[in-house]
Amino acid sequence: MDYYSNQITKLIEELSCLPGIGSKSAARLAFHLIHMPIEEVKRLASTMVEARENVRYCAECYTLTDQELCPICQNASRDHKTIMVVENTRDLAAYEKTGQYNGVYHVLHGAISPMVGIGPEDIKLKELIARLQGDVEEVIIATNSSLEGETTAMYISKLIKPTGIKVSRIASGVPVGGDLEYIDEVTLLRALEGRTEL
Amino acid sequence: MDYYSNQITKLIEELSCLPGIGSKSAARLAFHLIHMPIEEVKRLASTMVEARENVRYCAECYTLTDQELCPICQNASRDHKTIMVVENTRDLAAYEKTGQYNGVYHVLHGAISPMVGIGPEDIKLKELIARLQGDVEEVIIATNSSLEGETTAMYISKLIKPTGIKVSRIASGVPVGGDLEYIDEVTLLRALEGRTEL
Repeated sequence: MDYYSNQITKLIEELSCLPGIGSKSAARLAFHLIHMPIEEVKRLASTMVEARENVRYCAECYTLTDQELCPICQNASRDHKTIMVVENTRDLAAYEKTGQYNGVYHVLHGAISPMVGIGPEDIKLKELIARLQGDVEEVIIATNSSLEGETTAMYISKLIKPTGIKVSRIASGVPVGGDLEYIDEVTLLRALEGRTEL
Repeated sequence: MDYYSNQITKLIEELSCLPGIGSKSAARLAFHLIHMPIEEVKRLASTMVEARENVRYCAECYTLTDQELCPICQNASRDHKTIMVVENTRDLAAYEKTGQYNGVYHVLHGAISPMVGIGPEDIKLKELIARLQGDVEEVIIATNSSLEGETTAMYISKLIKPTGIKVSRIASGVPVGGDLEYIDEVTLLRALEGRTEL
């Protein structure tokens, strides 16, 4: 890329290492940054560095947070006896957006995937088991509906069942607004198996 | 967004102000940054600030560069008598990628657009006219094939013609590999008008 000068090329190259940013978007972003007011570029740069420096795992649920405990674990009005297990912080946010779940979470930071060498010890599973020593009534497994997510769900349920704590799995089925015609067979069968009486 | 802690929310918000980055991509980028090695985050942050601080217009062709003169204007082996006029630095890069153009450029940083109030004085046009005092044989107008690009091309050609310098416009027609069926009528007519004998 010798048609741009060094610093522009360097910026484009570093930006294109980010996920979902190809070389064209990286060039677009780079030129946008170069045209932005300098204070805004400095602010974005320092926000990035500060977030990277200060964000860590919540001591309780292992979500990413900039404090010792995340806002959800700090909130006494939430039901700390119900733990929803999710794969990552974005999945936690997806359930928080519904505004209807009042329990707490446990973030695994991954899912068991023997294919890429991720075993039970590579995700925050023993931390989940440690939390079950406390006063827990139900563990809701909300890992993704992928092969890895299902494997992880199965593994966790087997691990927890002997303790007598209730374990549940979020329902699998046709998404709301989904058109049956475009939905895969496995989902259709799951929806049939999981049918509820009206 | 109170389901993320402050610094994460702030990072997501700032990232989602960038072009082409919606709230989902911003969250994905933010979590990627949080998981990146801290030195890499710092390097990216300082590359951004440095590029913003040092990049300016080339004194000759007005492309963006981190030196007084851009690499192309500095290159004595290029034909400085042929100037290709483009709208922005990315369009310059598009022609440089062909590797076949040996002249120099002039970057307008925009196109005339009365609709949004961009007139001839808002783009680097008088800078182009000033360059024509030197030894110039041909000006190739390579503005986009949009309404604004065509208006600008027309305006520039009228401005230069009286000086006796050759002015040309890049050809408009069917893109290579393009399927006639999917190409608009205006392009098809242009391709017909611009047909060349075999």
